Amino acid sequence: MTASDRAGGGRTGRRPGGADTREDILVAAREVFAERGFDGATMRGVARSAGVDPALIYHYFGSKQQLFVAAMEIPYPYEQVLPMVLDGPREQMGERLVRQLLGYWEDPRINPLFRGVVRSAATDPMAAEMVRRMLAEGPFALLAQRIGAPDAELRAMLMASHVMGLALLRYVLEVEPLASAPAERVAGMVGPVIQGYLHGDVEPVGR
Amino acid sequence: MTASDRAGGGRTGRRPGGADTREDILVAAREVFAERGFDGATMRGVARSAGVDPALIYHYFGSKQQLFVAAMEIPYPYEQVLPMVLDGPREQMGERLVRQLLGYWEDPRINPLFRGVVRSAATDPMAAEMVRRMLAEGPFALLAQRIGAPDAELRAMLMASHVMGLALLRYVLEVEPLASAPAERVAGMVGPVIQGYLHGDVEPVGR
Repeated sequence: MTASDRAGGGRTGRRPGGADTREDILVAAREVFAERGFDGATMRGVARSAGVDPALIYHYFGSKQQLFVAAMEIPYPYEQVLPMVLDGPREQMGERLVRQLLGYWEDPRINPLFRGVVRSAATDPMAAEMVRRMLAEGPFALLAQRIGAPDAELRAMLMASHVMGLALLRYVLEVEPLASAPAERVAGMVGPVIQGYLHGDVEPVGR
Repeated sequence: MTASDRAGGGRTGRRPGGADTREDILVAAREVFAERGFDGATMRGVARSAGVDPALIYHYFGSKQQLFVAAMEIPYPYEQVLPMVLDGPREQMGERLVRQLLGYWEDPRINPLFRGVVRSAATDPMAAEMVRRMLAEGPFALLAQRIGAPDAELRAMLMASHVMGLALLRYVLEVEPLASAPAERVAGMVGPVIQGYLHGDVEPVGR
């Protein structure tokens, strides 16, 4: 399937040029980065998948690095995560957070982007920096500020590490039985764990 | 620093050939795979780091793939993990497991190997398969068999996901404040979480 197949109803047949083509390239780039990571992806591969000439990608994006940044810029609305997590019973915050984040991973528009970032971050410094920034600005850090414990930032990154590892095993490495377990079931098991980090009913530090 | 510097007292100056040279190549390969991942590593880079001719690496190992397998074969004694985790108060099993595994990550002989596997697994199918096998045979699965709950394998992979994510953020991406936190402190916080997965005081599934 090419990016233009996936783009669906919006295609008007204009090619080359126009907003459609640019978007097609981005959709294709997300798929290629998701499968190969930044290092493994080639402009030629993206061009082939998008059904355009490689020169057109250079025209729009300049370099593989700039293409990566543009492709990974699709908004996952993490500023909306916090209100959704805070809204409801306090003792189920962890589960709401995990459900919400798994929801993004399950979303076919966002999944390739997340996979691309995780795959690339393992080997590419630019992508690694992107993950560090996402973690510093993302819902874990925002929630950590609400906790107010002296070790809130460490707790935030422990939560983040669990969710990142979950995503790595479930969506990138596809380790069973985790990959096939329903998202609801996973959220029901991981949520209370995250809750422990959130509310401090975790062993005190410095023992 | 070259691999022969690192190899320390055991060097006798024989070169090329001999057990020393083979071991030097493996030490260098672990460093290069740890930094670049399988895709990014080159035989030339390993040769440079080991201070040998690339032809010698082909002579010993045949291919980059075979070199990777040999370099990653250093035994981390995971069959010893289970007795150590089982030996002691039941309610601190999780903490003993995490402390043990962080100990391996902190061990300078094992750390490059683990980083190499994680970095490579994100983009290389062979390394990904290696991780799947390590997870299937490793301490999480062994412990899961002891739990005996119907969802023991899923719990095992949830524990594994937390520890893998922890390693990814702490040792590969070096996200702060997790990267600088003392291992003891991290084990003290993550241990009780793993304990929850181990002993089932986690929300029941299927809700």
